[in-house]
Amino acid sequence: MKIHNVFPRLCCFLTKSQTRNTYNSCRAFHSTGRSQSVVLTKTRYPNLKRGPFSTLGDVDVQFFERLLPGTGRVLADASEIEGYNTDWLRTCRGCSELVLRPKTTEEVSAILNYCNTHNLAVVPQGGNTGLVGGSVPVFDEVVVSTQLLNQIISLDELSGSLVCQSGCVLGTLEDYIADYNLTIPLDLGAKGSCHIGGNIATNAGGVRLLRYGSLHGSILGLEAVLPNGEILDCMSTLRKDNTGYDLKQLFIGSEGTLGIVTAASVLCPQKPSAVSVAFLGCESFSKVLDIYKQAKGMLAEILSAYEFLDEASVAVNKENLKMTSPIGDFPFFVLIETSGSNGDHDEEKLNTFLEAMMSDGLVLDGTVVTESTKIKDIWSLRERVAEGLLHDGYCYKYDVSLPQAKFYDLVLDMRERLGSSVIRVVGYGHVGDGNLHLNMTSPTYSSEVMGNIEPFVYDWVSKYSGSISAEHGLGFKKRNFIYHSKSKSAVSLMQQIKKSIDPNGIMNPYKVLPEE
Amino acid sequence: MKIHNVFPRLCCFLTKSQTRNTYNSCRAFHSTGRSQSVVLTKTRYPNLKRGPFSTLGDVDVQFFERLLPGTGRVLADASEIEGYNTDWLRTCRGCSELVLRPKTTEEVSAILNYCNTHNLAVVPQGGNTGLVGGSVPVFDEVVVSTQLLNQIISLDELSGSLVCQSGCVLGTLEDYIADYNLTIPLDLGAKGSCHIGGNIATNAGGVRLLRYGSLHGSILGLEAVLPNGEILDCMSTLRKDNTGYDLKQLFIGSEGTLGIVTAASVLCPQKPSAVSVAFLGCESFSKVLDIYKQAKGMLAEILSAYEFLDEASVAVNKENLKMTSPIGDFPFFVLIETSGSNGDHDEEKLNTFLEAMMSDGLVLDGTVVTESTKIKDIWSLRERVAEGLLHDGYCYKYDVSLPQAKFYDLVLDMRERLGSSVIRVVGYGHVGDGNLHLNMTSPTYSSEVMGNIEPFVYDWVSKYSGSISAEHGLGFKKRNFIYHSKSKSAVSLMQQIKKSIDPNGIMNPYKVLPEE
Repeated sequence: MKIHNVFPRLCCFLTKSQTRNTYNSCRAFHSTGRSQSVVLTKTRYPNLKRGPFSTLGDVDVQFFERLLPGTGRVLADASEIEGYNTDWLRTCRGCSELVLRPKTTEEVSAILNYCNTHNLAVVPQGGNTGLVGGSVPVFDEVVVSTQLLNQIISLDELSGSLVCQSGCVLGTLEDYIADYNLTIPLDLGAKGSCHIGGNIATNAGGVRLLRYGSLHGSILGLEAVLPNGEILDCMSTLRKDNTGYDLKQLFIGSEGTLGIVTAASVLCPQKPSAVSVAFLGCESFSKVLDIYKQAKGMLAEILSAYEFLDEASVAVNKENLKMTSPIGDFPFFVLIETSGSNGDHDEEKLNTFLEAMMSDGLVLDGTVVTESTKIKDIWSLRERVAEGLLHDGYCYKYDVSLPQAKFYDLVLDMRERLGSSVIRVVGYGHVGDGNLHLNMTSPTYSSEVMGNIEPFVYDWVSKYSGSISAEHGLGFKKRNFIYHSKSKSAVSLMQQIKKSIDPNGIMNPYKVLPEE
Repeated sequence: MKIHNVFPRLCCFLTKSQTRNTYNSCRAFHSTGRSQSVVLTKTRYPNLKRGPFSTLGDVDVQFFERLLPGTGRVLADASEIEGYNTDWLRTCRGCSELVLRPKTTEEVSAILNYCNTHNLAVVPQGGNTGLVGGSVPVFDEVVVSTQLLNQIISLDELSGSLVCQSGCVLGTLEDYIADYNLTIPLDLGAKGSCHIGGNIATNAGGVRLLRYGSLHGSILGLEAVLPNGEILDCMSTLRKDNTGYDLKQLFIGSEGTLGIVTAASVLCPQKPSAVSVAFLGCESFSKVLDIYKQAKGMLAEILSAYEFLDEASVAVNKENLKMTSPIGDFPFFVLIETSGSNGDHDEEKLNTFLEAMMSDGLVLDGTVVTESTKIKDIWSLRERVAEGLLHDGYCYKYDVSLPQAKFYDLVLDMRERLGSSVIRVVGYGHVGDGNLHLNMTSPTYSSEVMGNIEPFVYDWVSKYSGSISAEHGLGFKKRNFIYHSKSKSAVSLMQQIKKSIDPNGIMNPYKVLPEE
């Protein structure tokens, strides 16, 4: 056990260009023709039947061109819409022939009213950073992109309520409110591209959920357009409002199947004046949990993230992204972030905590950084694993919640089960939230490997009362496994609500709810 | 300006017996015959029509007696059910002839199935501490009490998820988990009597919302019985679960109109090891806001409550409850609570903050306490105002959210408007949440006073985009004012959902949704 090496040791193991915002560069895949190599979803799932929707005609396109005048608002050219048809993971590809880019709620309303009347299916799309094929067409759905719904509307500095259109990029919002000493209550690796509307539609979690809770608590109000074009005004900037059913909650996490979120009000917490990140090595997953328990008690109100990576995850960084780790090799790594209003107090708490962890033998080695570029570098180790895995070829991606004690056993069982049929099986994620990211890779998609993974992984999770999708949603790829995490009564009520709000089923079909 | 008197000054101005749990003693009103003095709701609102429900018959009572064997499970004696017919404020009284006290979800299911089949209207009731007449019958609805659904089911110490039946008393849960170093994410003056199920059904706010957020974030799962008796299983102990629509959210704040919550899973945060409370005097409401702004920045992550009382509120304590204030008379009082994991750090932050507030002239005098009984005493000053007001006779009670800057103007306008027609107009509440409690009293109910208050108060709130019910709900008394805070499109969708889930309208009729 090394104890001399804990902190303060600044790490300088990543180049400056390796920033957190890697989604933008991957997004560029789509516009360079690489999307064509992605198998069409309707080809990969030959038994899937297209819904009884109309087929887009010239008269429809002409209507939309009149509705949305100006350049770049109605895209119908195959090369222009290629990126909108393909998901970030390059595992789903639709064949939509039309992308619409409205700028106002009224335009969204007119679009949906027209599509509903003419029985045209619609897929809403934000930053297209989703991981379950929820934001791209399955067949030929019309894509309604929120890219131009990108205006910040207002900010109340005292209460912290930020009102904006749904197409605002998360990172842009974060930068904007930083000047007012506020921060956004969620943080994702995709923040350079993802839209707040997409975050809301998917109930995005991310690394700050441990501190600031879910969007069900942080979204104060929203405006959505229902499938029939009606504008649902649930906008509010109030922290408390108990007047009737909290309808906005229905749209948080319904993945665009009940309507399109056009604007939202976000409760933004005070920006911490001091942030520290510790990156620690330890010998087992049970030690990861022991350290977490201590962190909850000793870091308490300043703990803002508690993440872990296994050795195989860090190997992805090293092998595929040529990154280096600031500490040696260990079976498990823990990333702890603290944020607070008094750097001296936070440092004292963190030091006391780390000394206790070292003397208890829970932590074997570690480093602590406080400088923002160094913090970003450490975070890159955690956040770029998803990108690194894509370099292997095809990535089988799972995002599950489990009781923390059973958390890592799934990785071990999967590794044993798949053996050499895959390149690797890695586990990392949000320990504090009980949220494991389980990933397997192979050079290309293999139905044999997939058959070994599913439904095994879902059965495993279900056995321990976990969630088969902790934060990524069900989208297209996981919808038929919904019963592994939800009761029949619950799914039946979801279907009832869907039918009531979207009787023609035009909103994001083939997503979330299971095939009937 | 006095600066010598700030802290540490321990206050000893209340007797030990004056605890926070004053709801229990008031609840006793109901069983001593005093309820009979409350005007029947159907008499006070003579134009209100009873819904087309069946009338309870002997055969129905016999069914329920078979279903719920044992003593005290089916109450039909007038004196026994008097308290269940009357609300805590003694402003609403129904004439139900039957109270049912199930112990299991299956019993609740059988009750609702029977009532739905036989067209009997039902009102669910928890601790009956609501303030808008939501938990008592309007006419002769059958009362389904959650009093015997009072079992704690499980606790996961590491994740903090507590699973219990819906009739558990909030304070009992808090005491139970304190042994595990956890605390409940909401705290109310009514915690000695209110049930967690009622808290969920009304989306109760309380004094910790500033720190831990609303129940939409803290409730991890729930089980509810739908109006047709079907059991909706949305139970989960997971912090993250994005598998389909988050149906539990619909039941949080729907005030028992969509079903009866029978069990829930609550995310319990780490119990703070150090708590301090400061009680401060200042000269204007704009200073109250200035102090809040500074507290957000300087106390940040340890700030757990920021409350205010006006001079008239403190006068209620003094005149009607014979309490004394630990500091002199000031136009406004601020109660600040900090909670954290390191008492020394918290004290240093609080001291620095208070010194700055004194030297800026924002705070005129104050006291700080850290001992738990003293903390309770200070909190009593804030939490017993509601009780004290009842001693005047009739209390016209409003609970609104407003943009913080406009917050107190409503009190001033109301005071001017009502003049000497009322005993007093007081304002206090949760400044940090933008939530004002506005109260007027008169010796007895006066329709003339009421006509001067409503709809004026709702119009005023609506003009500034506030909420006419921040945390109390709409219940029976405020349902017809829903359009002052919610759009037509939103209310229409609420009605659509209500009709879809409760087609016969048996669940808590005459509540939440407006008269058609």
